[in-house]
Amino acid sequence: MPKAFELGRLRVVLVSTRNPLNIGAAARAMSNFGFSQLRLVNPYEAAFRQATSAVGAADLMANAVEYKSVAEAVADCTLVVGTTAAGKRTLHQPLQRLEQGASVIRKHMRSGNVALLFGSEKRGLSNEDFSHCHWLMRIPTGEKNISMNLGQAVAVCLYELVRDVKASGKLPKEEQVTAGEMERITQVLLEVLSTSGYLDLRRIASSEERIRRLLRRTKFSAGDAESWLGMLRQILWKLKNGSHHR
Amino acid sequence: MPKAFELGRLRVVLVSTRNPLNIGAAARAMSNFGFSQLRLVNPYEAAFRQATSAVGAADLMANAVEYKSVAEAVADCTLVVGTTAAGKRTLHQPLQRLEQGASVIRKHMRSGNVALLFGSEKRGLSNEDFSHCHWLMRIPTGEKNISMNLGQAVAVCLYELVRDVKASGKLPKEEQVTAGEMERITQVLLEVLSTSGYLDLRRIASSEERIRRLLRRTKFSAGDAESWLGMLRQILWKLKNGSHHR
Repeated sequence: MPKAFELGRLRVVLVSTRNPLNIGAAARAMSNFGFSQLRLVNPYEAAFRQATSAVGAADLMANAVEYKSVAEAVADCTLVVGTTAAGKRTLHQPLQRLEQGASVIRKHMRSGNVALLFGSEKRGLSNEDFSHCHWLMRIPTGEKNISMNLGQAVAVCLYELVRDVKASGKLPKEEQVTAGEMERITQVLLEVLSTSGYLDLRRIASSEERIRRLLRRTKFSAGDAESWLGMLRQILWKLKNGSHHR
Repeated sequence: MPKAFELGRLRVVLVSTRNPLNIGAAARAMSNFGFSQLRLVNPYEAAFRQATSAVGAADLMANAVEYKSVAEAVADCTLVVGTTAAGKRTLHQPLQRLEQGASVIRKHMRSGNVALLFGSEKRGLSNEDFSHCHWLMRIPTGEKNISMNLGQAVAVCLYELVRDVKASGKLPKEEQVTAGEMERITQVLLEVLSTSGYLDLRRIASSEERIRRLLRRTKFSAGDAESWLGMLRQILWKLKNGSHHR
């Protein structure tokens, strides 16, 4: 995962954004994932800073910087990456999937500033915008619907930049009950089943073994053994004493 | 990456969502990433299906199913996962980061249905909602702003489910010019610099070697060698012939 000061090296550059709510949504996602540098090239609405969608990102919106051109907005960056849905557009630059591209950006942020460009809601980035980019990056959407909402696209890209790449796919094993506890549960359940007539009704050879195997296939959390025993004992008590009150 | 039919096993369950635009945004993200099963538990506005934010996801919105309870909405699932910003809330279930949790969900989708629950914009999922979940999952936001927009949270979770986990971090190497082409460029540049007086002005020992090293540090794409040679030759021609027209 990138360090906090490295995240400060990423400039999120929104080019010709039309809807201020999308600017606010981008700011909110930046704030969620620890980024701070928002840059705007010719935003459509001058009053974009009032966007109500920038929940928890007031500072970030206040500090957003406006530029007249992409060239000015990326001038202090040593890597410039444009995002695109690609689709059927003819591209003149290398195109990377987000998974690969983000990895390169992460490495670059260790030493230099990176600009990540997002185009307008309707048209995306222009070919002129692209010409400022070292390479382009696309979010791996399906073919049926490649057009993402701007705020969602920003959120997904930033998440990929901060995600823990070393995270293993395994859940930490929950502690299971010990064999001793399991056998205590087994014994009480067997007594409950016997008392309730369940075992008599079925008279299957090796019923006890079947019940025991059934319980071993069931995963009881370590802390729950006493609760199960308590429930079963209460049921057993009721089975044995309930008739007195009928 | 999960196969297309496996994505059909994920049910995105939005519980008590207030803003229909967020339902539409969730539907759009589902459509972007190849998911189809949207379920709603007690949406706040009955007319949510008209949300204009569901760009490209009309079918998905039309097929969304409404439920009266979480229990009904997750009944056909063998894994139920609740999302939460966590924060300072006391949780009674295991909490996984998205990176780990998504990996478990991906594996589960190979054989069974999975419900992924998202709570309301204001309060998230309730403890009662949580009690239907096998475990909980959080998007790795920073501490400063843990509250994500609902549509963005859905987009980030679904992206993590479909991202190419095997994607390597290396960009495919761009082909560079050959040493022969590089030397042709070097020779023409040297002639240009000599003709323009640049080399004379500097009279540094081993100027040629410096220029040669400078060019070797510069990465020219393979296909661009002819363009560079063309530009330099034109400059050279102009340097040699331009004076006739003064």
